[in-house]
Amino acid sequence: MIRLTLEQARELAQDILRSNGFSEPHVQAVTATVLAGERDGCASHGLYRLLGCVSSLKAGKVVADAEPQVFDQAPAIVRVDARGGFSQLAFQAGLPALLAKTRDCGIAALAINRCVHFSALWVEIEALTDAGLVALACTPSHAWVAPAGGTQPVFGTNPIAFGWPRSGRQPFIFDFATSAIARGDIELHRRAGQPIPLGWGIDAQGQPSTDAAAVLNGAMLTFGGHKGSALAAMVELIAGPLIGDLTSAESLAFDAGSRSSPYHGELIIALDPRRFLGEDADSHLGRAESLFASIQGQGARLPSQRRYQARARSAEQGVQIPQALYDDLKALILG
Amino acid sequence: MIRLTLEQARELAQDILRSNGFSEPHVQAVTATVLAGERDGCASHGLYRLLGCVSSLKAGKVVADAEPQVFDQAPAIVRVDARGGFSQLAFQAGLPALLAKTRDCGIAALAINRCVHFSALWVEIEALTDAGLVALACTPSHAWVAPAGGTQPVFGTNPIAFGWPRSGRQPFIFDFATSAIARGDIELHRRAGQPIPLGWGIDAQGQPSTDAAAVLNGAMLTFGGHKGSALAAMVELIAGPLIGDLTSAESLAFDAGSRSSPYHGELIIALDPRRFLGEDADSHLGRAESLFASIQGQGARLPSQRRYQARARSAEQGVQIPQALYDDLKALILG
Repeated sequence: MIRLTLEQARELAQDILRSNGFSEPHVQAVTATVLAGERDGCASHGLYRLLGCVSSLKAGKVVADAEPQVFDQAPAIVRVDARGGFSQLAFQAGLPALLAKTRDCGIAALAINRCVHFSALWVEIEALTDAGLVALACTPSHAWVAPAGGTQPVFGTNPIAFGWPRSGRQPFIFDFATSAIARGDIELHRRAGQPIPLGWGIDAQGQPSTDAAAVLNGAMLTFGGHKGSALAAMVELIAGPLIGDLTSAESLAFDAGSRSSPYHGELIIALDPRRFLGEDADSHLGRAESLFASIQGQGARLPSQRRYQARARSAEQGVQIPQALYDDLKALILG
Repeated sequence: MIRLTLEQARELAQDILRSNGFSEPHVQAVTATVLAGERDGCASHGLYRLLGCVSSLKAGKVVADAEPQVFDQAPAIVRVDARGGFSQLAFQAGLPALLAKTRDCGIAALAINRCVHFSALWVEIEALTDAGLVALACTPSHAWVAPAGGTQPVFGTNPIAFGWPRSGRQPFIFDFATSAIARGDIELHRRAGQPIPLGWGIDAQGQPSTDAAAVLNGAMLTFGGHKGSALAAMVELIAGPLIGDLTSAESLAFDAGSRSSPYHGELIIALDPRRFLGEDADSHLGRAESLFASIQGQGARLPSQRRYQARARSAEQGVQIPQALYDDLKALILG
């Protein structure tokens, strides 16, 4: 393992993205999210993702200097056309209108179209909880996951993220794949030559397997049986056809074997507690704290706590990544 | 088992509710949902629920003639105060404004407050898909379910329901408890003296149990481990404090041992595909059909199909309920 300060990790990411030709707004937006992932202990959404950024660019699957275009779609809908660029900049472009519409209408949606997507959703959710809003986000990916009762991939890993603002505290946030595990975690096992637990996926013959490579070539499974499968279908629908964008199967077909990041859309829904509650907002939001206390008081963990602990640790000690990954990343810097 | 035509089942429900003093709007609204549950093969949300309607009334926990009051809370929020009555009539009262706001703004929310709730959410979701809208609904219940990693009940069974309209076909709808199983199913096992599977719950000492009564006195578990637990927390938050209403723990405290239906709120979010998609709506909604075909084409089932099959069967053959339940129901008719 090699240790990097957060500043060193930031410079590494920026150097890779800049030297490969990404425009400065994309350099900054992508760096912010992979750095946040690494900092918060989410290796599968950390610096490792820069490998995919560059390979997607080399495969011609991402536009390095795309300028997102914002559309006022409806009183409570803002739409951003990412024009083939990474999703992060498109989210930033749509955020001011989403905040304004949510405060005006009480609830609003941001639909991001034609973006290349690999980011952890909780980074975007935090931007909304920081503004005092409740938020929900989801996106398809590539068709890697079989529906409950089936054996063929149809769904993406289809993450769902949710955030709840907490006065004077870090927000309550969860962000999980509706697959049994993130695909990045299976890829990290394959890179490390480690077996995966049963239940993560099936091989190309539809049989349960602990071989990471066999599952990557077969199908992943959803979490929670038919309920997780239903949620995965919901994500396909509301972050796909509902917003006029690709399903995971269509995104994988567009990828045409290049193994690039998925190209499709993302849906973010924001709700303003102050519009729902009026002047009683503070007292009702305070009651949510009783709920958190009753969870933590019995020794159970809130979903975001491990990330916040890693964040505090990284602020003091920096981050650690495998030497092999570091070497692969350094090799991406051109010129 | 005793067989009833749908008309006989309707008259039975109406006679029970009317003779116990419910106002005619509540008689009609409640009858419609318990009949829909029985008709669609959901015994746990069928005629059996009339036992709870009457016991809630006798315990003074529901207002038999409550008239819901509708508030225009924000451009995209309608709020209905159920004033202590059952939720169904409140939903009906808020539906026209929810439809209008969703069509105006693209996305809108209906918050129902101070309702007594026992209805299956898919009945309400169908009202929205029938209008061509995508819909999501959730509600807390009573604090019966332990968070992942804990042993004490905090969450309700906290169902999440989702619907997607399909042109010329029955909608794609799922409706599931974020608990491993609906509480009604455990109660039906207890009534029948049958053991429950491991994984549904733990006893009062926090140990896994197959004894339905022990689990009803201990804690139920969520589906899907920490992911299901996170979703249960989300439902508590967005259908509780966000809308100024009770959490499942607060609802159970209000119940004060009367074993009545939960008293709290419900959140329904509706999205209008035509506002998201404009004139391309039909072609994009058509692409959702490819998704459904790829699920069904490999022998996997869409979540709503079993209900629609039961619905078709009930239209021809009526419904069957246990003789003991029928006797219990007949005994509720007064005068």
